[in-house]
Amino acid sequence: MIVAGIMSGTSLDGIDVAIVDIAQLSPFRFTLLATHAEPYAAEVREAILGVSDCQAHTADLTRLHVLLGELYADAVERALSANGLGSRLELIGCHGQTIFHQGDTRPYLGRPIAGTLQIGEPSAMAERFGVPVVSDFRPRDMAAGGKGAPLVPFLDSLVFGDAHTPRIALNIGGIANLTAIPAGGKPGELIAFDTGPGNMVMDSLVRRATGGRETFDADGARGRLGRPIEDFVRMELEENPYYAATPPKTAGREQYGDAMVSALESTGRPLEDLLATAALMTARSIAVGVTRFALPYLRTELPGAELFVAGGGRHNGFLMDLLAGELPGLRIEGTERFQLPIDFKEAIAFAALAYATIAGQPGNVPSATGARHAAVLGKVTR
Amino acid sequence: MIVAGIMSGTSLDGIDVAIVDIAQLSPFRFTLLATHAEPYAAEVREAILGVSDCQAHTADLTRLHVLLGELYADAVERALSANGLGSRLELIGCHGQTIFHQGDTRPYLGRPIAGTLQIGEPSAMAERFGVPVVSDFRPRDMAAGGKGAPLVPFLDSLVFGDAHTPRIALNIGGIANLTAIPAGGKPGELIAFDTGPGNMVMDSLVRRATGGRETFDADGARGRLGRPIEDFVRMELEENPYYAATPPKTAGREQYGDAMVSALESTGRPLEDLLATAALMTARSIAVGVTRFALPYLRTELPGAELFVAGGGRHNGFLMDLLAGELPGLRIEGTERFQLPIDFKEAIAFAALAYATIAGQPGNVPSATGARHAAVLGKVTR
Repeated sequence: MIVAGIMSGTSLDGIDVAIVDIAQLSPFRFTLLATHAEPYAAEVREAILGVSDCQAHTADLTRLHVLLGELYADAVERALSANGLGSRLELIGCHGQTIFHQGDTRPYLGRPIAGTLQIGEPSAMAERFGVPVVSDFRPRDMAAGGKGAPLVPFLDSLVFGDAHTPRIALNIGGIANLTAIPAGGKPGELIAFDTGPGNMVMDSLVRRATGGRETFDADGARGRLGRPIEDFVRMELEENPYYAATPPKTAGREQYGDAMVSALESTGRPLEDLLATAALMTARSIAVGVTRFALPYLRTELPGAELFVAGGGRHNGFLMDLLAGELPGLRIEGTERFQLPIDFKEAIAFAALAYATIAGQPGNVPSATGARHAAVLGKVTR
Repeated sequence: MIVAGIMSGTSLDGIDVAIVDIAQLSPFRFTLLATHAEPYAAEVREAILGVSDCQAHTADLTRLHVLLGELYADAVERALSANGLGSRLELIGCHGQTIFHQGDTRPYLGRPIAGTLQIGEPSAMAERFGVPVVSDFRPRDMAAGGKGAPLVPFLDSLVFGDAHTPRIALNIGGIANLTAIPAGGKPGELIAFDTGPGNMVMDSLVRRATGGRETFDADGARGRLGRPIEDFVRMELEENPYYAATPPKTAGREQYGDAMVSALESTGRPLEDLLATAALMTARSIAVGVTRFALPYLRTELPGAELFVAGGGRHNGFLMDLLAGELPGLRIEGTERFQLPIDFKEAIAFAALAYATIAGQPGNVPSATGARHAAVLGKVTR
């Protein structure tokens, strides 16, 4: 079955599309046919920011919901036509654009309520391609008591599960998260959690220092020239109770936002030192997650597992070197060997999740989301 | 198949649930098993008003979306348990609560965009009852070029289609609308449109005159004591081009809002006269719709068709008497004979629409919505 997976993340870069031919889920057999990244126009990014987690006009929110569905359809159309796939598409899985997420319940009008809102109306895609569209994957897990995230462990379990070698799938986006999969485990037997910061502290430092002209430290070239402030990293890891907390756990983006960036800047050290510090903090907090939680769960020690990295952080050679230094002997490589280009792993995950839904199979991994039970995720539009 | 249909209308009264046992769609065979109306708590009504068609915090909107899903589940649970239906439920169709609807496209970020937003997350119902839930019926019709409304003509066609008698299904809610179904027509062969005001002018007059203590003129008792301002009704019908426009057409609620009520009040006539005027305007505009568009489409004249009324206006005996006077010889009765209690026809419609979706059958009637083609409506959550 030829399936398009569509992801657009909270970094608001744009729309990632992966077209895969899925032969079966278990064991997972698929062929990656095409990938396509479509950046958001500036006014679309502005409109998303305008409705995200703040006051918004209900009319604007609705129109943006419909417009994003059209843009998703455009992106899929380009991915298909640029790769000669014409009318072969059979199914679409679309994550949508998150504009609000609260994984834990809080009182609202007298009830404990959690909630998540992904926009991007799927009907335009169903109309344009004449295929079913699965969308809005997170609420069903939350109705089963889960946090609605992370959902990518479903793909990690399918792809990285191995009879003999325990494996760790690491994704370094704004926040870094990992999935640890034991050797010879059953499908869905894993732990998954956020390790702490990914790229977001580094990215913020660069944006603020350049007035927004640059948005990231390409390949970590600037950070590599700096000297990290060891005390800053040590104190963060010792004083923030997050790193010692037992998974499953979710790191809040607010932990690595303006307050931390300002604290770094207030040291008066040059940008290169600050970037080196942020990179070290990312590498070391990942290493803490690996050694303190992942390896014990996998019943192994440092050289006994393999680590596969995806996400933007994989492009940062300096960060990768630091990570290797923090995890001596561990085999670390990108996810490409598994037909998962590091920038399209999430899009492929939503293709696989859509396939599961249409096959009537659960897509959430309860040990990752905290759900009481597995559930068939998403909403199907025809 | 035992199906719960759930409707909550823009009047914000609350949640209507109908439980029906559907044997087949064509010809339509069903048994009404139970109905239940659950009023919204005041704070829920306030919260819906707070996000409807105005500035809203995205977090509040999301939480209300989830909360309404829980309230819908509660209402279904009460409908089942109060009627000894326990665990027999097999499917749910849920319209949701409309908080924005724009059936025509307007430019938005450079594209022609229409949009509709119904909230009430279905996952809580899927979790609670373990049955599929079909929700969000309107966007798929809009993606096919329709206005996303009206959708009840699907049920009208199933129920009122008759081999020998042309029939008109009239619903008098805030706005009044009708569906005209020719004798011996094919499924979906009909016209449907808003005739003009329903109860909303009368209701507003009562609310404003009583400072909100009363919300409607029960049975039209007050209006019956008044003398209608014939000139006001005549001018509205002559000068507002809406009534002469060819269907399909949708009356805006703003046409019958504060401006019209203020114009009535400014005549200085007693409330009874104003209510009589508003009732006459409703009856006469319905009669105009019937005689100018419905009967010619049905290729018949006044006594040759039957008219079946549902909606709150059916409870207004004065309005029904006026309507009979405007349409001499026409047989007018409620929809109860067809197992459609006048307050639950829409809930039953969404049960039938959900059944169609699960059966892979289209639910929109293109001649009613203006869609380019029929489409399987809604989103299925399991």
